Amino acid sequence: MLHYVCTACGKRTPATTHAPVCECGGLFELDFTPPAWDAARIDRSEWSQFRYRDFMALEGDTWRSVTLGEGMTPIVRFDDDVLFKMDYTMPTLSFKDRGAATLVAHAKSIGVERCVQDSSGNAGNSVAAYCARAGIACEIYVPEGTSPKKITMIESHGAKVHVVPGSRDHCADVCRARVKEEGVYYMNHVYNPFFYEGMKAYVYETFEQLGRIPANIVVPVGNGTLFIGVIKALEHLQASGAIDAFPNVIALQSELCDPLLRAREAGEHVPARVSPQPTMAEGIAIGVPMRGRELLDMIYRHNVKVVSAPEEKILEARHAIARRGIYCEHTTAANYAAYLHYCELYGRTPDTLITMCGAGIKSDH
Amino acid sequence: MLHYVCTACGKRTPATTHAPVCECGGLFELDFTPPAWDAARIDRSEWSQFRYRDFMALEGDTWRSVTLGEGMTPIVRFDDDVLFKMDYTMPTLSFKDRGAATLVAHAKSIGVERCVQDSSGNAGNSVAAYCARAGIACEIYVPEGTSPKKITMIESHGAKVHVVPGSRDHCADVCRARVKEEGVYYMNHVYNPFFYEGMKAYVYETFEQLGRIPANIVVPVGNGTLFIGVIKALEHLQASGAIDAFPNVIALQSELCDPLLRAREAGEHVPARVSPQPTMAEGIAIGVPMRGRELLDMIYRHNVKVVSAPEEKILEARHAIARRGIYCEHTTAANYAAYLHYCELYGRTPDTLITMCGAGIKSDH
Repeated sequence: MLHYVCTACGKRTPATTHAPVCECGGLFELDFTPPAWDAARIDRSEWSQFRYRDFMALEGDTWRSVTLGEGMTPIVRFDDDVLFKMDYTMPTLSFKDRGAATLVAHAKSIGVERCVQDSSGNAGNSVAAYCARAGIACEIYVPEGTSPKKITMIESHGAKVHVVPGSRDHCADVCRARVKEEGVYYMNHVYNPFFYEGMKAYVYETFEQLGRIPANIVVPVGNGTLFIGVIKALEHLQASGAIDAFPNVIALQSELCDPLLRAREAGEHVPARVSPQPTMAEGIAIGVPMRGRELLDMIYRHNVKVVSAPEEKILEARHAIARRGIYCEHTTAANYAAYLHYCELYGRTPDTLITMCGAGIKSDH
Repeated sequence: MLHYVCTACGKRTPATTHAPVCECGGLFELDFTPPAWDAARIDRSEWSQFRYRDFMALEGDTWRSVTLGEGMTPIVRFDDDVLFKMDYTMPTLSFKDRGAATLVAHAKSIGVERCVQDSSGNAGNSVAAYCARAGIACEIYVPEGTSPKKITMIESHGAKVHVVPGSRDHCADVCRARVKEEGVYYMNHVYNPFFYEGMKAYVYETFEQLGRIPANIVVPVGNGTLFIGVIKALEHLQASGAIDAFPNVIALQSELCDPLLRAREAGEHVPARVSPQPTMAEGIAIGVPMRGRELLDMIYRHNVKVVSAPEEKILEARHAIARRGIYCEHTTAANYAAYLHYCELYGRTPDTLITMCGAGIKSDH
């Protein structure tokens, strides 16, 4: 039986709990060590990321009724130095489907019937879609100013949308107050460790597709859901002896919202206090990442470089990518802009994998 | 060396020609018989539809620099009777990428440097993207009234957009006049048989993924690009002895634009003359399908049933699909609406494959 361990007090709690956090208020992580990587354990008859389920903390077969075929996204050569993993070719057009699929499958398996989530973007849309698939009633809290188009998409899945006046942070507060008062399940990509189990597949797929791990992996970090998944999976591959060297992981933040970059520069183990400014890279504009300490531990453990995406280069990067046939979100273009900035700082960086994590039409109005 | 054969006069022309049609004006088809289906010929190291390239009319390796990883789309169980093939999880969010990838790869291999195409929808967007990828200059003719969002996406790929006053048919006429006068390459999904080579992968993938072909396959038919690909691939599988029985193929048209349905009902071998009315299923609203005779030959050869998508059921079908987690285009929802209509006519129809061919956000304004 799977257990959570509290990242604050260390207490163990059965993963069947419907509580969002430990009694002490600390965030959960999963007490789960996957079996050693072995390509023979890949279920090649399954054409979704669940072909790697032997390496994910999943109990039972609930995923079968929840999957929408997420994952198995192609890797495309962009130029001599760069490979793009086309992670927006997903059911809701973003990489969040990886995590939403595993999280909702878990929730379904423990009898969750109703849930709430706060998100103005891809995560909210993805959770709404998978809840619809699983038959879980869902309410999504979005901040005022969220585009009507996004609200229409969320509502199309039968989810109820609450538009909350004020900031994105305030919107989360309102949602979490609801969780606390009513005990309704918090289907949240940052709080719930099962979300990360899906994100791990990003690395497993890459390893199966290329037969190796690229020398450099560029990962956007806001709340760090992909980053945590990537690091966990790489650590797993290395512990299994499947890869010799840990790749050079390059984390990126918006230059207008960079609490982890600043902490890294100052050698601190908690995120720096920042005053986030509006950025086109809205998907990674998280001023107070809830798992900041965990993220920074990983950053120091693997000597991850943190680099900023220059705001004034985002549209240029999007343009350059589109001129080669790929139309991506603004936040996604920031990944490439940050990579180019990294090359300016550290020189040419061949054999680099960058995620194309959101479809371009999603950031058009 | 590959050759075209004229569907009108039978004359053979090397497939290296840059001409859009035979000297007599007839449309080309490819003189190509793929080798017998053999699962051992699937290139399992290739994570795109080009893993089936042994069965496609492709010469050389040009596809390697053109592919964006299209294909390999998952099949998802929708209910006890219906499977959805998630064909919008593609680089440009529609199934047209299958054909655009093979067509542009062919064009690149014969030295095409400039091209034109007419399309107000998915095909134009897809051709623009793959031309950008291949470094082929591209101009797209769209009819007036095309949404600015679609024009923005096409232009993002560096293509030049010509907005033509008048109808969709007139827009095509203007584009074809340009082809005739200037000899510029016509990168068109209906005229060019290489487009169909990519659409065949829809069936090959299904066969590899399920290990069988479903009893019923529902295919939308406007110009019939997917339909022709599906029939060709099924005929290939049957001729190879890989499948015993030809499945029950169900072709659907908009009830407001149904030249093939009417011809079928009247036992005619040319499309009926219709006066197309505005329909939400705009992607299949083709009043005069250029390959109408070819389509009807296939329809009679395999006893394909042609059924209409009731206009007033399209939004309801889209809603039903979204309530199960999948957000699709209006035209795509028409596929499911037509299936339900088919069940009303012929009774419950289990083991049915339906394509989810366009992402829902594409038909939102």
